[in-house]
Amino acid sequence: MLRRIVKTQGTRASASPLFYPAAFKDAVYLSSACGSRSGGTKIKEPAGPKVITPIPGPKTKQLLKELNEIQQANSVSIFSDFDNSIGNYFVDADGNIFLDTYMQISSIPIGYNHPDLLTVFEDQHNLRVLVNRPALGVYPGNDWPQKMRDVLLAVAPPGLDMVSTMMCGACSNENAYKAAFILYQTKKRCGKLDFSDEEVKSVAKNLPPGAPNLAVLSFNGAFHGRTLASLATTRSKAIQKLDFPSFDWPVAPFPLYKYPLDQCADYNKKQDEKCLSAVCELIEKWEKKNHPVAAVVVEPVQSEGGDNEASPEFFQQLQQICIGKGISLILDEVQTGCGPTGKMWCHEYFDLPTPPDMVTFSKKMMTGGFYFKRELRPPQPFRIFNTWMGDPSKVVLLERILKVMKRDNLLKLVLETGQYFKCGLHEVEAEFPNLIHSVRGRGTLLAFTACSPQLRDKIIVNLKKAGIMGGACGAAAIRLRPALIFEKKHTDIYLDKLRTVLKCLK
Amino acid sequence: MLRRIVKTQGTRASASPLFYPAAFKDAVYLSSACGSRSGGTKIKEPAGPKVITPIPGPKTKQLLKELNEIQQANSVSIFSDFDNSIGNYFVDADGNIFLDTYMQISSIPIGYNHPDLLTVFEDQHNLRVLVNRPALGVYPGNDWPQKMRDVLLAVAPPGLDMVSTMMCGACSNENAYKAAFILYQTKKRCGKLDFSDEEVKSVAKNLPPGAPNLAVLSFNGAFHGRTLASLATTRSKAIQKLDFPSFDWPVAPFPLYKYPLDQCADYNKKQDEKCLSAVCELIEKWEKKNHPVAAVVVEPVQSEGGDNEASPEFFQQLQQICIGKGISLILDEVQTGCGPTGKMWCHEYFDLPTPPDMVTFSKKMMTGGFYFKRELRPPQPFRIFNTWMGDPSKVVLLERILKVMKRDNLLKLVLETGQYFKCGLHEVEAEFPNLIHSVRGRGTLLAFTACSPQLRDKIIVNLKKAGIMGGACGAAAIRLRPALIFEKKHTDIYLDKLRTVLKCLK
Repeated sequence: MLRRIVKTQGTRASASPLFYPAAFKDAVYLSSACGSRSGGTKIKEPAGPKVITPIPGPKTKQLLKELNEIQQANSVSIFSDFDNSIGNYFVDADGNIFLDTYMQISSIPIGYNHPDLLTVFEDQHNLRVLVNRPALGVYPGNDWPQKMRDVLLAVAPPGLDMVSTMMCGACSNENAYKAAFILYQTKKRCGKLDFSDEEVKSVAKNLPPGAPNLAVLSFNGAFHGRTLASLATTRSKAIQKLDFPSFDWPVAPFPLYKYPLDQCADYNKKQDEKCLSAVCELIEKWEKKNHPVAAVVVEPVQSEGGDNEASPEFFQQLQQICIGKGISLILDEVQTGCGPTGKMWCHEYFDLPTPPDMVTFSKKMMTGGFYFKRELRPPQPFRIFNTWMGDPSKVVLLERILKVMKRDNLLKLVLETGQYFKCGLHEVEAEFPNLIHSVRGRGTLLAFTACSPQLRDKIIVNLKKAGIMGGACGAAAIRLRPALIFEKKHTDIYLDKLRTVLKCLK
Repeated sequence: MLRRIVKTQGTRASASPLFYPAAFKDAVYLSSACGSRSGGTKIKEPAGPKVITPIPGPKTKQLLKELNEIQQANSVSIFSDFDNSIGNYFVDADGNIFLDTYMQISSIPIGYNHPDLLTVFEDQHNLRVLVNRPALGVYPGNDWPQKMRDVLLAVAPPGLDMVSTMMCGACSNENAYKAAFILYQTKKRCGKLDFSDEEVKSVAKNLPPGAPNLAVLSFNGAFHGRTLASLATTRSKAIQKLDFPSFDWPVAPFPLYKYPLDQCADYNKKQDEKCLSAVCELIEKWEKKNHPVAAVVVEPVQSEGGDNEASPEFFQQLQQICIGKGISLILDEVQTGCGPTGKMWCHEYFDLPTPPDMVTFSKKMMTGGFYFKRELRPPQPFRIFNTWMGDPSKVVLLERILKVMKRDNLLKLVLETGQYFKCGLHEVEAEFPNLIHSVRGRGTLLAFTACSPQLRDKIIVNLKKAGIMGGACGAAAIRLRPALIFEKKHTDIYLDKLRTVLKCLK
């Protein structure tokens, strides 16, 4: 592999002084763990974070002012310098260098400017895939079936052998809901493929029976997107939903565990029971009001909602409920999928006796989409359909990412780094019991909770000033979403900075 | 410009025999009109279509079988060979060469493999924009405000100076609806920025007042996307909507004109009046049932619905109704935007006394998004928001496309080709009055109607067999959606093939 990179340096890269970012005078080679063990890619990263301006810096402030003249931009926290960001290090518009544990809301899988990704579109065929975006549902490329098999289905969740691509996570969930509605109604018609005149007439007016009163059940704290139907299942923060019309769909409580898990087993088990029992009650209640639940959607780890975990037993029993009621179970792996837990899909930890009906994805997978069981393939065409239905150029990027993950043994690295990282976090929570608690997670998809929302916000801000980009979630949690190339040495930097920040807040 | 292409041939392109497709042994240079007049790009196109297998060909059939094992793929009509497609010519998996008048459902602006697009990502900065897709709402690139100004706002509809990007057309419409809902409720609160406890509590359950009963009015025949809220405004074909829960939103009739327009002015005026009066009645009716209309969404030309036009006066009066009622007017220019009518935005033909409140776009614009008036900028952040919020690499492509459009005078070419094309179609409809009628449209966004749905389908199939890719719409219409580089000589080929097909069907 090194050969290719050297070749790259000699051709395209040499044309640009940016290939190895000029900003990194102190750069060292990554990486003992990844590099030496697996023959992985050498990435020149800086030795550590370096903050040289107040945060936000003057250029960032100016750019924010400019962007606010074009749209509501006060959600912007910082402007990126993608020419100089590299590996696990994010560089902002002011030249500050951050160790990034959030990675564009968990959507950069193998770090910034990975050399393998920079060469993908040197291939003339790939370039043409990029430049000629097809209407995939009508005129896909002649290599599309093969790409679907070799890339997307090659990493499909065990037991799921069908897949549709979409543009983003919200659309993926909306289309999974649509597939569930189609299956539910098709079963109701006993498989009959014709629609009644009444259905056809009423649907033009958005009314039943053509547009039936069907529901999707979701959980308190869930996040499934922001288009209106996905938003109807999102139950995280009020500001995400206020002022938008919604569907009368049921919401169940999600287990809220106490930590450490091994000392709180009884309490947590009761959480599971309470929530599962609420799920059953809600399904029955909605059935009674003639508004049946066609699907249950759930994240393996509620991310935006606070990194709330649930036990494998919870998911197993939830699946049993769905099977018993003839309801589709949709696992939303938009944030947990593609490796951050140390498995390709987080739900592989759940030992489900049978595969979930659908698994939705996006973010690190580069393309949105959903895997599904054969029975969820709509009987007629043009029902799960739109103009683009995804973007093959993103699948071409994913293909390279998956190759790198395999070649460089990144799932193993995630598990090793994650175990080391979690131990380190446990040590820190033991040192600062009045500040943080509830260290949790799998792989490097880790989190902990601050003792108050205000304290959490202070920790995030002070970490940023110390050169660490991080993500908040829920009321008082901090979530870790590093790239899959995050190593022990990065962990050491993080833990060191976290200790320093917590000491000052004590 | 020629210099750059020659340079390209000498470096990257020379690595691939595909740069000038090998399939085109009879290739000739495009283009007298475009090339000679404006010094535009030379594109080696084939001399004409060439069909060498039955349609669909054996490879296409095999690929369709394979794709159907992965998803419901019976909407697929043909598989693309993007290595060999060029300019206005589409090549399929079987090596058949088609003149393409549909261009991936109207989403390829300057033809296949335009040389200017093939070089965009040789620029190392652009390549990094492509490889590091940001979470635009939190960490946009440091050139993002400038790109928004220089690319998107540079071609904004007159009077609109704000813009948000999105991933696709459906999401763009959904977010425009959200912006309208926010404005409506903010006005209702007299601008007060706080939410009541009741709102915050009720929205968690998807209930009013936090999730208010607000509606979007759309028109019979409309197409605005397929996510559930955009689908609630789509009123085209039942199969697009059946089995999906929807919103109780009003649908108004859309004018259905008779042609030629100058001989049917009275009838068409009455159509306008009838539809506008229905709009008023529906708005009042929904107001009375405490489910007020916050926005009206309308296409300048209903495309999927049948290429149904309405007069400038219709749109002017529709706008007056919206202004009178305090309702946002959203023009969905997903299909009509970016030049096919000979103006950047179709609604520029309508002489609206004041700009529409929002204009949504996607397809030829490469990125989804919507332009909006300043008052539609939400008062708080994180309300029009998601992880990606578009894809800057598509804006980089759009930047190059807009440069080509300007340099090669493509809007002028569209007007010239369009005028010539429309005259030709009028001649054909005069020759075959029992087969087709109602030639209509602006620029090269043209259409005609067959005398029955069955006849329309036959024309489409037979044209395809003759080497013409085309698009159906509505019950019996054929829509023309060529690229902006379509010329008189392509028109001649189309008209010749159409005549041949119609003669056989007479």
